[in-house]
Amino acid sequence: MSGTAKKHSTDIRVRYAETDRMGVVYYGNYFVWFEVARTEFFRASGISYRELEEKRHLRVMVIGAACRYRSPATYDDLLNVETWISGIKNTSLVFAYQVRRDSTLIATGETTHVFTDVNGKPIKISEEIRSALTSTF
Amino acid sequence: MSGTAKKHSTDIRVRYAETDRMGVVYYGNYFVWFEVARTEFFRASGISYRELEEKRHLRVMVIGAACRYRSPATYDDLLNVETWISGIKNTSLVFAYQVRRDSTLIATGETTHVFTDVNGKPIKISEEIRSALTSTF
Amino acid sequence: MSGTAKKHSTDIRVRYAETDRMGVVYYGNYFVWFEVARTEFFRASGISYRELEEKRHLRVMVIGAACRYRSPATYDDLLNVETWISGIKNTSLVFAYQVRRDSTLIATGETTHVFTDVNGKPIKISEEIRSALTSTF
Amino acid sequence: MSGTAKKHSTDIRVRYAETDRMGVVYYGNYFVWFEVARTEFFRASGISYRELEEKRHLRVMVIGAACRYRSPATYDDLLNVETWISGIKNTSLVFAYQVRRDSTLIATGETTHVFTDVNGKPIKISEEIRSALTSTF
Repeated sequence: MSGTAKKHSTDIRVRYAETDRMGVVYYGNYFVWFEVARTEFFRASGISYRELEEKRHLRVMVIGAACRYRSPATYDDLLNVETWISGIKNTSLVFAYQVRRDSTLIATGETTHVFTDVNGKPIKISEEIRSALTSTF
Repeated sequence: MSGTAKKHSTDIRVRYAETDRMGVVYYGNYFVWFEVARTEFFRASGISYRELEEKRHLRVMVIGAACRYRSPATYDDLLNVETWISGIKNTSLVFAYQVRRDSTLIATGETTHVFTDVNGKPIKISEEIRSALTSTF
Repeated sequence: MSGTAKKHSTDIRVRYAETDRMGVVYYGNYFVWFEVARTEFFRASGISYRELEEKRHLRVMVIGAACRYRSPATYDDLLNVETWISGIKNTSLVFAYQVRRDSTLIATGETTHVFTDVNGKPIKISEEIRSALTSTF
Repeated sequence: MSGTAKKHSTDIRVRYAETDRMGVVYYGNYFVWFEVARTEFFRASGISYRELEEKRHLRVMVIGAACRYRSPATYDDLLNVETWISGIKNTSLVFAYQVRRDSTLIATGETTHVFTDVNGKPIKISEEIRSALTSTF
């Protein structure tokens, strides 16, 4: 993909449940937000991830995940997650994320996924899905 | 059931992830511990809950849950959950729980369950399962 | 309170993380949604719960919680949580909740809270807060 | 550090709450297990992480986290997490993890941490702590 990958933006309100006794968001919860952002990226691309699973019997499995924490977030913060596809191959793709609170960078992350059938066997990403995910909104 | 219901005891070490910014355990996490305690109650009764699902195609669905919070718990506390069956009918049963840290009562709770097939249709609890769950350890 | 308690409505999109291997929402996660709904109830009443903690040094501790599960919810469902105060006393109050997906009742619940100072000592709910929480939106 | 870093081993029983509708463990929950494994690594090294926070007023903040998922795990699996320090500098260190179910590699991961005071200011890892963490068990 060129550097012109389309970006999608999702707002997240931090839940009390997502904080820990250090007073800030627990580090594992950023990966839940990345999942929410991916779901919304799919939807904005005209593809319901739920339908990929329920109607096309596809799975988009996570094979890698990483996050760098730049500045803490806490309860009731209104965060913005910017999401884009930073790489796409035959059967796999990489989502990249930036989490911000206004102009403050909170975290950056990446998740790598393989498209599979219900038995976990990798399958080629169809042209239709590839095109929907990578064409501009 | 008589008042002589057998009790099973499970230890839980509080995880950092389970605390919130108030410095104590988030209230929703007690229900996760109740699930851990149920799993161990089944296992100690000679029935693997996993096998109930995977081999007998049963589901033990939750239809009600309640907790009363008596004293807070926090990170790294070693808690004990005492679990017993406080009621059992044709297709349903009630688990009761007491969470303690040494002699301090932390919480009490109750969950109500229905045995169903994989489609969610209630089915009679078999004599074998009923006997295993209610006979003494 | 009379039966005319004001109701507040919050939408929740079910996260993949909130489901379990039974294919539906894990029972403990409803209590997280109740917390989200309470936060929004406070905000709509003109009181930021975050400010209650950070500026007024109050805590609204949970002392009891219960949920009845009527119908399962799953990933990507758009749910509505209706929230109201079903009882209020000197230092405590009860929130009630109804979770629906369109016209289907998914769950009902209740949480009981005590207002305390930062040391956990119960304190009287001020007239200002009582009035804000119970007057119509 | 040389390649002789001591390794600590912790067992984790997969909770129902930790699975998702794909039938396997939700990817974000591995980071919770890494936290459990770190806590036990500290304890086995003669240092209670809880005491670091409560008595020495230190924080061991997470600034980076990554996981690679090799093979799925599911409910009731008994997993083993092997933990070691793969790097240590003046104010920071890196924990590495391998999650296995018997001889099957489930996941590998890494978390990077900075020691700080309660205000988040990085501070040098004391000789006492450094020695406890890196000397053999």
